[in-house]
Amino acid sequence: MPSEAALGPPLLGFLSDYGLADELVGVCHAVMLRITPGLRIVDITHEVPPHDVRAGALTLARAAQYLVPATLLAVVDPGVGTERRPVAVETEHGHLVGPDNGLLAPAVAMLGGATRAVALTNEEYQLPSPAPTFAGRDVFAPAAANLAGGTDLADLGDEIATDSMLPGTLPLSRVDEGVLRGEVLWVDRFGNAQLNVDPGELEELGVGPGGMVEVRTGDAARVARWVTAYGDARPSELVVLVDSYGLVSLALDRASAAVELGVGPGDAVALGPVAGG
Amino acid sequence: MPSEAALGPPLLGFLSDYGLADELVGVCHAVMLRITPGLRIVDITHEVPPHDVRAGALTLARAAQYLVPATLLAVVDPGVGTERRPVAVETEHGHLVGPDNGLLAPAVAMLGGATRAVALTNEEYQLPSPAPTFAGRDVFAPAAANLAGGTDLADLGDEIATDSMLPGTLPLSRVDEGVLRGEVLWVDRFGNAQLNVDPGELEELGVGPGGMVEVRTGDAARVARWVTAYGDARPSELVVLVDSYGLVSLALDRASAAVELGVGPGDAVALGPVAGG
Amino acid sequence: MPSEAALGPPLLGFLSDYGLADELVGVCHAVMLRITPGLRIVDITHEVPPHDVRAGALTLARAAQYLVPATLLAVVDPGVGTERRPVAVETEHGHLVGPDNGLLAPAVAMLGGATRAVALTNEEYQLPSPAPTFAGRDVFAPAAANLAGGTDLADLGDEIATDSMLPGTLPLSRVDEGVLRGEVLWVDRFGNAQLNVDPGELEELGVGPGGMVEVRTGDAARVARWVTAYGDARPSELVVLVDSYGLVSLALDRASAAVELGVGPGDAVALGPVAGG
Repeated sequence: MPSEAALGPPLLGFLSDYGLADELVGVCHAVMLRITPGLRIVDITHEVPPHDVRAGALTLARAAQYLVPATLLAVVDPGVGTERRPVAVETEHGHLVGPDNGLLAPAVAMLGGATRAVALTNEEYQLPSPAPTFAGRDVFAPAAANLAGGTDLADLGDEIATDSMLPGTLPLSRVDEGVLRGEVLWVDRFGNAQLNVDPGELEELGVGPGGMVEVRTGDAARVARWVTAYGDARPSELVVLVDSYGLVSLALDRASAAVELGVGPGDAVALGPVAGG
Repeated sequence: MPSEAALGPPLLGFLSDYGLADELVGVCHAVMLRITPGLRIVDITHEVPPHDVRAGALTLARAAQYLVPATLLAVVDPGVGTERRPVAVETEHGHLVGPDNGLLAPAVAMLGGATRAVALTNEEYQLPSPAPTFAGRDVFAPAAANLAGGTDLADLGDEIATDSMLPGTLPLSRVDEGVLRGEVLWVDRFGNAQLNVDPGELEELGVGPGGMVEVRTGDAARVARWVTAYGDARPSELVVLVDSYGLVSLALDRASAAVELGVGPGDAVALGPVAGG
Repeated sequence: MPSEAALGPPLLGFLSDYGLADELVGVCHAVMLRITPGLRIVDITHEVPPHDVRAGALTLARAAQYLVPATLLAVVDPGVGTERRPVAVETEHGHLVGPDNGLLAPAVAMLGGATRAVALTNEEYQLPSPAPTFAGRDVFAPAAANLAGGTDLADLGDEIATDSMLPGTLPLSRVDEGVLRGEVLWVDRFGNAQLNVDPGELEELGVGPGGMVEVRTGDAARVARWVTAYGDARPSELVVLVDSYGLVSLALDRASAAVELGVGPGDAVALGPVAGG
């Protein structure tokens, strides 16, 4: 892994639930560029559903591997201004900054775990504010920009035990009576439903590429074909495929599998061999 | 206030009602980067409701203090191609560029007032165009990029009297029979409703932090608790708090106060002590 | 036309149907900035309707002239992972990268035609991936960033005949019994409906600026006035004007002409002199 310095000006990935209708994201950009003028900011997304920490955590974890080495700033923070701690976390591939509410945990784990962490208690690295309600602007963005610019983590606040931070809760799939019980992690813009299922788990049940898979959602059961690409689906055909993150996804030809199946993030899906197949 | 030059490459804040579905914003970015290659453009927002000059003016004024020293480009321009003047305004903290329709006025006031202004009459600093319908691309963006790159204001057109520009109309709150009558300035993505009310005005009526406030909207009266942070609200509890701009806002725990109260920008809200309280 | 090098760091225009709710766009940005750190990326739009190659092609062609000299990356790719070829195309004003499905063709034509083209077959310039489903990240973005950074086109894959690529299908208008039959190319955020009609074609029918035009959509006929600017329309008045791309558009004063007329992209519109006028 090359060092950050060898890769040009510092890169900072920014994810939030601020949306783009208000000026919140732009203001955070300006605050960060004032602190570290050479910063290149990549907007991961700002359309995380409001207050949906789980969705934000999953999105951050999916994106992190393509950003690092970088500083990652993430703000989905329903507890802003209350007792939850604002934190900065060091990993071998860069720093993560955000609320200690589980948002950062899956990305931290994917980057090899936390090597050091601080609570953002040093007000010298914060913006003065009339109220503790916009921590993205006043606390998190300044911390991230300072870290990206070379400030030492220890300057930002009091060190905390890395295992004192709230863990993320990533759902695990399990096999039950020959059926793989998982859930929907993410529905993308095209309606593809990513599951918390590794293709290897499905193959252990005797289902493989090119074969047929039974897909159970609620009381309904459907049969899907395991294909290689979205475009391999025939008109109206439900298919199973390995997506670009290596996980099993459900898709329909140029239509939303999530709408057709009536599922969204967190909903249960069971996969298995076709009965009598 | 440090000079712009001391702060790295020039910063330009860009606000419009163009939305992100069409290519208008991207084309303006390209036009500006061709003129001033080192420019760093911060998108404040482009989701101002179409033609809503008041909403754009309020958003620009909220953001301006975090952008400057910078050039601010704002385009919400229902009168494009008609008699309204395209202008550029100098303040002590940077230039503002946009239509003379009140859009710039609150931000100019917040930045200490205009010291100089021109109508953008010099076509040498404009793009040739088949029609006068996309002034953002052809007139405003080139002017802003040139100013950010060091062009003198006087080169862009004929000087105009700073007091000849259309003023902004920011609503004032007033006290009437012991009740503070204000209105909603802004509903953010989370449904928090910012009022044109300073917390000091409310305290003069004998209501303070930790106390209860009567909130009247239309014919309905509700009681809200004055808290410090959004996260302090109990489930379904309506609260009053000082927001990150120092103004009084109405909020609900993880739900939209604006939807619950049935109010939007411009709607009247009256605040006062709880009757018999 | 100045050379790209004379114009500062390389410019790359990026258009897709990825939307901004997921992390896809941000991940592509990160991939490209890792390859060419000095790159300045302009997001043309990412809100092309999912899988709508025609809309993406028209948007890219409208924007291209304001971006070049630049590299243009476009991804609207319903056939990802199937037999359609990923390609890079050289023109006199810069390279275009995307799927060979007609998406690039109108922009290539507008830039003077293809001088060379390759299929993106060289995996050394691609990201390893668990599945062929996110070619934007794994194939197209790396190719575009490498071209913008100076890699020779021939390094990216096998040369293909420029006339072997799928042509775009831009609808032509035609005169029929003294009426100009065209169609809606684009409805912008304000509801203005751009037609595939050049103002000169209309003038040949004896209709000119300031005059009245009969507008037929479906079974309905309306009369519109030919004005210069959107703001010239009177309340509720349907107008015809030359838009900022030099094409004839239909507009309503501060309302959506497309909604009023019940038309969208691809719908037929006939224009002509007012009967008896």
